[in-house]
Amino acid sequence: MNNIVDIAKQIFENQPFSKDIGAKLDILDNDNIQITIKLNNRHKQQHGFAHGGVISYLADNCLTFAGGIALGGDALTAEYKINYIRPSVGVMLLAKSHPLSVGKRQSVCCAEIFDVDEKGERSLCAYAVGTIVKTGE
Amino acid sequence: MNNIVDIAKQIFENQPFSKDIGAKLDILDNDNIQITIKLNNRHKQQHGFAHGGVISYLADNCLTFAGGIALGGDALTAEYKINYIRPSVGVMLLAKSHPLSVGKRQSVCCAEIFDVDEKGERSLCAYAVGTIVKTGE
Amino acid sequence: MNNIVDIAKQIFENQPFSKDIGAKLDILDNDNIQITIKLNNRHKQQHGFAHGGVISYLADNCLTFAGGIALGGDALTAEYKINYIRPSVGVMLLAKSHPLSVGKRQSVCCAEIFDVDEKGERSLCAYAVGTIVKTGE
Amino acid sequence: MNNIVDIAKQIFENQPFSKDIGAKLDILDNDNIQITIKLNNRHKQQHGFAHGGVISYLADNCLTFAGGIALGGDALTAEYKINYIRPSVGVMLLAKSHPLSVGKRQSVCCAEIFDVDEKGERSLCAYAVGTIVKTGE
Repeated sequence: MNNIVDIAKQIFENQPFSKDIGAKLDILDNDNIQITIKLNNRHKQQHGFAHGGVISYLADNCLTFAGGIALGGDALTAEYKINYIRPSVGVMLLAKSHPLSVGKRQSVCCAEIFDVDEKGERSLCAYAVGTIVKTGE
Repeated sequence: MNNIVDIAKQIFENQPFSKDIGAKLDILDNDNIQITIKLNNRHKQQHGFAHGGVISYLADNCLTFAGGIALGGDALTAEYKINYIRPSVGVMLLAKSHPLSVGKRQSVCCAEIFDVDEKGERSLCAYAVGTIVKTGE
Repeated sequence: MNNIVDIAKQIFENQPFSKDIGAKLDILDNDNIQITIKLNNRHKQQHGFAHGGVISYLADNCLTFAGGIALGGDALTAEYKINYIRPSVGVMLLAKSHPLSVGKRQSVCCAEIFDVDEKGERSLCAYAVGTIVKTGE
Repeated sequence: MNNIVDIAKQIFENQPFSKDIGAKLDILDNDNIQITIKLNNRHKQQHGFAHGGVISYLADNCLTFAGGIALGGDALTAEYKINYIRPSVGVMLLAKSHPLSVGKRQSVCCAEIFDVDEKGERSLCAYAVGTIVKTGE
């Protein structure tokens, strides 16, 4: 495990909202990170599906970490767009993100958010694209 | 208070995640709705600002309610885009949304998310635009 | 007419594609710029409406100029999102843009693209939001 | 060549703006379509790069055709978002698009727009994601 991955894990640990919402960060390799949330009733909207705000959190944060790792340091999501594709009716949400481009100061990343059912089968639930900018410069 | 506003308030009450995140819905009139969150430590990211996921929740849900009221019934956000403008350092986030267009089945809405400081002064924190689609048809 | 407005007009004159597509730039004041295209058959798609590419050109360029004037120099659109609201069936397209926020290096702007009929009446045809970044730094 | 591909080619031929801008449609298979433009001076902006409006046209139209073929008929782009990644300095632009999801009435598609240099080498120039809706229903 290299240094930037350690830094990323530390940053994630220092996010109270990520802890509060029950999210876990998993860094597969420098180009692929994923965040998961085991769904409980508190994550739902009025029809029993995962709330769009939960899915948006995953998109936003997954993009930030994929971009931050690609840029080699602390970063923030400057903007993103999300398309909801189908309602989340499963037991877990899993978000994956990787960079489409990496420059000196910013990276464009995309993220897939999957609904995972009891058998572990994934369906694409939402798709996001955003701009991640290096901070502290 | 008319019927669609009652329905909207009932839907909001039936969203466990809105309750969990500490959000309150305020319907000013049929064309202007707002949602607020009093910020605590649990809403923060690693630098002490409100987490992008909290701001995204506000954008997503505010767009849904503005669109749903405009369309006259239960609705969902099909997609949206958000630009983060400045970090939220205040004590409250306030999101306002209104429709830019209303058709039979869908509405395009925009939302402003304001950071509110201790004196009640607002700064634009993020801006979102999205498509809201009527459900149950 | 101040200096930045002169610079903006000069930049517009130096865009071969703006000339090719038949666009005209009109700067109302530093916070409001508009670009128009008188519609001919060559601007159309298969149903006789203005092509999405023409509307997108207007969104893209209008955002760039509004942002560039706000930032005080040459600029480019880093990203934008557009919602098409209704088909353009009129004789002219008119795009207006203004900044939602202005920083040192970038500005978030929104743009409205109106369809204008023979009587000069405007209908909102599309809405765009984007990030404009100062160049040459 | 199947029927929907024939229909798509016919629709493209009936777009005056696609002809005017010098675009060519190439359908590789039902899940992959591409549109190219050989760049001339008239496609440029003030720095000699392809104008964002030209790149946007490619994104918009490529998304529409990928979505329309996936949906099995005439379609329109309801909204999209584009990130410009690097300036186009080559001799041709090539846009590719495929669906991320396909429903009864709408499809979410993504598009890559490549800058192609004199040796035929491609660089990612822009990335777009949008919603394509079936028409005539």
